[in-house]
Amino acid sequence: VSTDDQRLARVALSLLVEPGSRMMGALVDRAGPGEVLAALVDGHAPAALAAQCAPRMRTDPLARAADALQLGARMGARVLVPGDEEWPAGLDDLRRISRADGERVERDTWPPLCLWVRGPLGLAAACERAVAVVGARAATPYGGHVATEFGHRLADRGWTVVSGAAYGVDAAAHRGALAAPGATVAVLACGVDRAYPAGNAALLERIAEEGLLVSEWPPGSEPHRHRFLIRNRVIAALAAGTVMVEAAARSGARQTLGQAMRLGRAGMVVPGPVTSAMSVGCHVAARQWDARLVCSPEEVLEEVGRIGEDLAAVPQAQPTRLDRLDATSRQVLDAISARTPRPVEEVAAVAGVALRPALAALGVLEEAGLVVRRPGGYQLGPRPRRDRAPARAALPRGDARPPGAVT
Amino acid sequence: VSTDDQRLARVALSLLVEPGSRMMGALVDRAGPGEVLAALVDGHAPAALAAQCAPRMRTDPLARAADALQLGARMGARVLVPGDEEWPAGLDDLRRISRADGERVERDTWPPLCLWVRGPLGLAAACERAVAVVGARAATPYGGHVATEFGHRLADRGWTVVSGAAYGVDAAAHRGALAAPGATVAVLACGVDRAYPAGNAALLERIAEEGLLVSEWPPGSEPHRHRFLIRNRVIAALAAGTVMVEAAARSGARQTLGQAMRLGRAGMVVPGPVTSAMSVGCHVAARQWDARLVCSPEEVLEEVGRIGEDLAAVPQAQPTRLDRLDATSRQVLDAISARTPRPVEEVAAVAGVALRPALAALGVLEEAGLVVRRPGGYQLGPRPRRDRAPARAALPRGDARPPGAVT
Repeated sequence: VSTDDQRLARVALSLLVEPGSRMMGALVDRAGPGEVLAALVDGHAPAALAAQCAPRMRTDPLARAADALQLGARMGARVLVPGDEEWPAGLDDLRRISRADGERVERDTWPPLCLWVRGPLGLAAACERAVAVVGARAATPYGGHVATEFGHRLADRGWTVVSGAAYGVDAAAHRGALAAPGATVAVLACGVDRAYPAGNAALLERIAEEGLLVSEWPPGSEPHRHRFLIRNRVIAALAAGTVMVEAAARSGARQTLGQAMRLGRAGMVVPGPVTSAMSVGCHVAARQWDARLVCSPEEVLEEVGRIGEDLAAVPQAQPTRLDRLDATSRQVLDAISARTPRPVEEVAAVAGVALRPALAALGVLEEAGLVVRRPGGYQLGPRPRRDRAPARAALPRGDARPPGAVT
Repeated sequence: VSTDDQRLARVALSLLVEPGSRMMGALVDRAGPGEVLAALVDGHAPAALAAQCAPRMRTDPLARAADALQLGARMGARVLVPGDEEWPAGLDDLRRISRADGERVERDTWPPLCLWVRGPLGLAAACERAVAVVGARAATPYGGHVATEFGHRLADRGWTVVSGAAYGVDAAAHRGALAAPGATVAVLACGVDRAYPAGNAALLERIAEEGLLVSEWPPGSEPHRHRFLIRNRVIAALAAGTVMVEAAARSGARQTLGQAMRLGRAGMVVPGPVTSAMSVGCHVAARQWDARLVCSPEEVLEEVGRIGEDLAAVPQAQPTRLDRLDATSRQVLDAISARTPRPVEEVAAVAGVALRPALAALGVLEEAGLVVRRPGGYQLGPRPRRDRAPARAALPRGDARPPGAVT
């Protein structure tokens, strides 16, 4: 558990560099927040870190942190730090992908120094079963529909819907969740007191009342462009998996998805028409990154849920009476005329099966009421058989067996 | 090369059992078609095979075969048998999946005993570079559009489009191919002289004139329901890969796709809206069978084409001026005001970067014309910058790097 001093020091440090800095974060891990702050104030901090913090060191960081906490309290915002009961354990995983793979990363992805939250829920508890639903701001009606539906049904199943409160997919996912008796968490790139984007002001207010607004930046902070990229890693880390509903070829949502997958979380995309520019990002992620295709909230839960507990049913058509027939019986049935009775020998010849199996099949078909015996042979039964209509005579049966490639 | 006797014997045998029979096919492989026919006529054939053929043995098979050839010749149809130059080698692969995996198969998938073809192309040559495009009869306008587009552009790239001439996806794929200077092959479940389905009569006539109609059944044969399932394996075997454009949960196209994958061919599906029942089969095949998602004809060719020769470009947005900036420069740019010049120290503080990199970034930004130096500091450059407009200030940049999961 953090002391108040440690909490204040973390807030102060968070004001000195943009979030995600490994340089700052790793040192705080080793030395503790109070010690790092003291070193910076006293001029004993490592030169690189001191240089990075210098431009914002001109006013007293501790005083500014105290101001921020006071402002936050007035806004109904509280600050969380590691060790708090509300601190989500999943955030710690961000250390693992922070420059972990040696590739040139554009920014660090170190866990937040602290989080500002506003709303009635406990953040850790809300994220115990959480799915991120993200996507394009310029969503199509299809994307908006799917995001609303997914948000609603995930929340309805007791899962928290995490997103970024942007226009388009994000807002639709939050709205869907709010319409269900479930929770939703919006992770912002500005202060939790800011109504950004302005058109979502009412939505943000509702989330603050029923869910949670979360931010790494103190109240009053501006949504600078680069902050959205920094913010995305928090969305990815808070949820057990990230679903991208729609995304253009260039999209911030793809970054969130990629970070989720680098974190070992489930990376999922919703397919869409190949003619839609807003589904290109989803299809590319499926093809290039092996993001999992999900077509329903149930399939999402199958990816993130515990095995067995949330197993989606494979979409299947209703079996028809004909499905219960074996291949020979169906072949024999094809050889039966609706109008003219045919002798068994002729039926066998037309069907191309031997006499004995033809007779056996006729027995099965007769019992099922599909054929009747008349003087002169067999003929189709009197019952109306929709799927025997001429227009559908050519319809082959589905084959539900997986192929199991033979090479 | 087959002798005329062998050709005639194969046609005769093909009249005695429905195609695909391993019992018949394996014996013909071992003993030769003439010998098997003689054994059946003389009553020395294995009892199981004799029983299967008995119902159709009542009239002389050789005489009926000669009639079929004569009728075929009148219709402009020729018969192909293994050993003919026109015989596609890919058909032999069907032996490998004929009850190969020991699972309960519904029907045998042995290679055809012979093929009836009608049209100006050589079948083997046409199938050297061939893709099957299959799908739902009840295609949506989306499916029809995609099938036409794929058919056209595959044919335009010199690939033969193989399909089944059914309504919906099949017909659209053939039509697309016919509109391009490429070839198309229709594999039928009835005689190559039959206009089935009736609504595609004109299409079938055009394929007979410019492409190829192919069937395992002699001219005059009826399109019995079970024959579509038998036929599907030929579509799968003739092509280097099968693309399923649209398919309901229950669909014959899925059988074709499954057989293609069991043959070791490329199995591909086109995604669609998750709200469309006609895309369910595609999505299930992608999820359950690992059929490859394809969004363009170029991606199809990447699956079936030779490596390097047909590599599809990953869809990407055009890079903007901002893309060329590194993370620090973009962070610094975010801290520059459009109206008020800011001193370097203030820019660095707002951006949260050290003074030296801030200065370096400002140099880069100034050179790019994105910022200008004024008395009192830096301010945004005079050029119109669409992507700096307030409404888009929140747009994060795309992240094109694959994630490479860290666990």
